[in-house]
Amino acid sequence: MQENAVNYATMPPKDLRQLFREGCLNCQTSGMSLGYAQANMVVLPQKYAYDFLLFAQRNPKPCPILEVGDVGSPWLQSIAKDCNVASDLPKYRIYEHGKLVGEFDDVQAHWRDDLVAFLIGCSFSFESELLDSGVSVRHIEEGRNVPMYQTNIACNPAGIFSGNMVVSMRPLPPEQIVTAVNITAAMPRVHGTPVHIGNPEYIGITDIQRPDFGEMVTIHEHETPVFWACGVTPQSIVMNSKPDFCITHAPGHMLITDVKNANLKF
Amino acid sequence: MQENAVNYATMPPKDLRQLFREGCLNCQTSGMSLGYAQANMVVLPQKYAYDFLLFAQRNPKPCPILEVGDVGSPWLQSIAKDCNVASDLPKYRIYEHGKLVGEFDDVQAHWRDDLVAFLIGCSFSFESELLDSGVSVRHIEEGRNVPMYQTNIACNPAGIFSGNMVVSMRPLPPEQIVTAVNITAAMPRVHGTPVHIGNPEYIGITDIQRPDFGEMVTIHEHETPVFWACGVTPQSIVMNSKPDFCITHAPGHMLITDVKNANLKF
Repeated sequence: MQENAVNYATMPPKDLRQLFREGCLNCQTSGMSLGYAQANMVVLPQKYAYDFLLFAQRNPKPCPILEVGDVGSPWLQSIAKDCNVASDLPKYRIYEHGKLVGEFDDVQAHWRDDLVAFLIGCSFSFESELLDSGVSVRHIEEGRNVPMYQTNIACNPAGIFSGNMVVSMRPLPPEQIVTAVNITAAMPRVHGTPVHIGNPEYIGITDIQRPDFGEMVTIHEHETPVFWACGVTPQSIVMNSKPDFCITHAPGHMLITDVKNANLKF
Repeated sequence: MQENAVNYATMPPKDLRQLFREGCLNCQTSGMSLGYAQANMVVLPQKYAYDFLLFAQRNPKPCPILEVGDVGSPWLQSIAKDCNVASDLPKYRIYEHGKLVGEFDDVQAHWRDDLVAFLIGCSFSFESELLDSGVSVRHIEEGRNVPMYQTNIACNPAGIFSGNMVVSMRPLPPEQIVTAVNITAAMPRVHGTPVHIGNPEYIGITDIQRPDFGEMVTIHEHETPVFWACGVTPQSIVMNSKPDFCITHAPGHMLITDVKNANLKF
């Protein structure tokens, strides 16, 4: 008897989190549980938590907080049910003093009583809304990772955390820009409106063809590059400030939440 | 030679803050610097700051943060220029262990190196947008303070801070409710959409005619009471938790910011 192939796109978030928890699956989460929000994660010792939460409050576009765990607890209360963030993501990274010390499928053995989990909104959520409205999302069309750039846009500093914003770029034909602004304006918890439309040099990007992270995509004639604040910013900022200990999700290996993207409007 | 009467409604925010700083004026700020946002203030010792910021993050409707000062600094960076929050509001209250110890026109003598100022959005901002769109704001029409109620809606607790939400009520004719929802949906930094429309008992209000704070207003036949999260909530929550020291603005004596209400959209 042959089993049917498992369709992760339609699998409920809790079932996928269970597979991650049991160590049965440790791949990237793009395309899984379609319609549900995925979240970036940064876990820091309590001594850094106030500065990081204040950094997020002062920089809501690059760092839109979806949930903050209680001190010492890996269990979430709000965006995912029965969810232990130390086991229910597919893959983790641990950093000490800003240096990567390893990748792990589970970080329960590394969890500590002083750790605080920050879950941060992700552009996957607004991309699904853009696609639903007929706005092109080039990197999805071309099967690539979104192009991301360091900019000259200074984040508002908070305590030990400071640095410039990282942005993601999606090229749009002129007639789709207003629609894209309106759709993302309604989703402030997943980066909100673009931070810049048009001239890359104005925000310190000297060569649009060479993203600092991700992969380049085609910009057709008459298209305009549109830039959104990117969830890589808080990770980049945290790494720059070299906390003695930090856990993050591995790139692309996000938390799959129980929150529908459509419910992130306002 | 007779001087013309001073028109506080058209006076720029910085000029009014200067009058408050110099102690020339200490009255309520309603109707001053029309078009500019006013803010509630809660000042707490650093040891409570993380819990309070987390409470705000978990309860953005009753507690929408506009700015958080740096530890020990009464100077703002963002919502008001050259603004010292220890002198530039018209009147303050100081609480110790949850008890009011006095009202002051200036709290510079009480400022400490461990204090953190939290500035919180206020419904004045969305009321001016409602009026501009022809939505009735009954307590303004009747020259009263807005009616406010304790509810059975539990706020999401954070550390030492927990309790129920306080709401403000504005009665609306049926044809204005959708407009009011849409206008306030665009202003999440000043309480956002209503938390309840319709039945007061559903949110624990047993007698709509007897508000817990403020004054009752007329509800005409066919009108529906519409309830918004209220900025009194964080003050009520803080008082319940009895921190050893706390400074707030005196009721109605708000910080007048340099931010235009229209710029609080998204």
